[in-house]
Amino acid sequence: MQAVARTLLRSVQRTALIPRVPSLVARSPVVQSGVLRCNPSIAPRIAPIARAFSSAPVPPQSDEKRGYVVLSMLGKDKVGIVRDFSHYLTSLGANVEESRMARLGGEFAVIVLVSLRGMEASEGLAKFKTGLESAFPDFQIHARLTEERDADADVSAAESSSESAEPELLPFEIQVDGPDSPGIVAAVTKVLASRNITLSNVETQTTSAAFSGYPLFRMDVECRIPPSLVSEVERDLESVEEKFGVAISVFELEEDVLDDDVDGEEKR
Amino acid sequence: MQAVARTLLRSVQRTALIPRVPSLVARSPVVQSGVLRCNPSIAPRIAPIARAFSSAPVPPQSDEKRGYVVLSMLGKDKVGIVRDFSHYLTSLGANVEESRMARLGGEFAVIVLVSLRGMEASEGLAKFKTGLESAFPDFQIHARLTEERDADADVSAAESSSESAEPELLPFEIQVDGPDSPGIVAAVTKVLASRNITLSNVETQTTSAAFSGYPLFRMDVECRIPPSLVSEVERDLESVEEKFGVAISVFELEEDVLDDDVDGEEKR
Repeated sequence: MQAVARTLLRSVQRTALIPRVPSLVARSPVVQSGVLRCNPSIAPRIAPIARAFSSAPVPPQSDEKRGYVVLSMLGKDKVGIVRDFSHYLTSLGANVEESRMARLGGEFAVIVLVSLRGMEASEGLAKFKTGLESAFPDFQIHARLTEERDADADVSAAESSSESAEPELLPFEIQVDGPDSPGIVAAVTKVLASRNITLSNVETQTTSAAFSGYPLFRMDVECRIPPSLVSEVERDLESVEEKFGVAISVFELEEDVLDDDVDGEEKR
Repeated sequence: MQAVARTLLRSVQRTALIPRVPSLVARSPVVQSGVLRCNPSIAPRIAPIARAFSSAPVPPQSDEKRGYVVLSMLGKDKVGIVRDFSHYLTSLGANVEESRMARLGGEFAVIVLVSLRGMEASEGLAKFKTGLESAFPDFQIHARLTEERDADADVSAAESSSESAEPELLPFEIQVDGPDSPGIVAAVTKVLASRNITLSNVETQTTSAAFSGYPLFRMDVECRIPPSLVSEVERDLESVEEKFGVAISVFELEEDVLDDDVDGEEKR
């Protein structure tokens, strides 16, 4: 009962836009005290948003052609990487549309979707990548042109389902908790891939075995599932629960209001 | 008042372990209804965790030498990438310790920390990477050896602060919301980098201008800050608020109980 109550509480601020992976600690059955303390001396400062927004230096909305590039960067972690990287992009007129960056071991890894105003990305990619490599010589860098950002399909449709045959795809979040076992990521994602369901966002984490006696595993997946497949996906995930001794929660997310409005705008 | 209440509610399930970025929609002042609906017909199924854990195939705890490798993979999105990738790693005896994976534009990007039991990573890295490249020929792949996973320092210490001079670093989360402007990522991270504060986790996102009239920006940063620098960091972030017309919230996170226990174990 407690677990359910906690889940529903959390659900209040969830939507499909960004996955939020509540911590292993908070959801672990063995740890009850891993909660945030809001230090009163540094209580969150909520700026007067209405004022701030109205006086903000709003960038001009132009019809300038944008190219889209996905970058990955991987190198030794050090102070100032994100500052230097974002400063460099800004100096080129590139905009960071979406990113995930993490310290992993002693390295710092970045994946980012960048838009470049006023240039055809197909012409500029090689030059862009060369410039990055000179600016960040210690980093391994990949860059790929990609299709125009699809704000509407933050989660992509299954490839095999044509729009007319399966017009509706419901956004879902799948959370996995339990002991870490070889093959658990493959087992969960196999349930989805075997039904041509693509994933928009995945996070996994493990913790040392020192605390609980065995390594704990945590996974959070966002995807879109055709309504007709939801029950069989759930059934197969129950088999994964049994086999690996993990707890799997499946949430249907509210269709994103932002997406709907973007849709309306784009159809004008 | 509403904004504060929502923030504090969310804080209840926060800890420092994994950043959770509540959605742009939920925190946007112009959208009030972007909440999750938990479909009753597919209510979250909470497995009987105690039973599941006790009967789980707990992997043997061995003192086998592990090597740690950070991988990045970038390629065209298609069904089954995560399944195939994780299956391949499992078949090699590699374990996914931590990962971020996202569809960005039409691509799928992965950054992951992998441990390889029973092999010296220094010997196996080239072979490992070659194997991956044959298995995933359409992907651009980078692989780097990294230091042993530092479960204790999920957020890394500032490089310049010696342990004796500044033994305590407090975990903080910084959230930025507002209109997207060129240079906002650089401005926020500059405040931290100029004080030798490294970042453990960063997520950024923007949304189309169609809904609100201008593009919205969202950023979530996790880092550790020396207590003596907290007030000046806050002061400088206030300047960023003013300059860019964004709202920045600074949370001190509870020191992770899991980390403490891992500490204790490792010191034995």
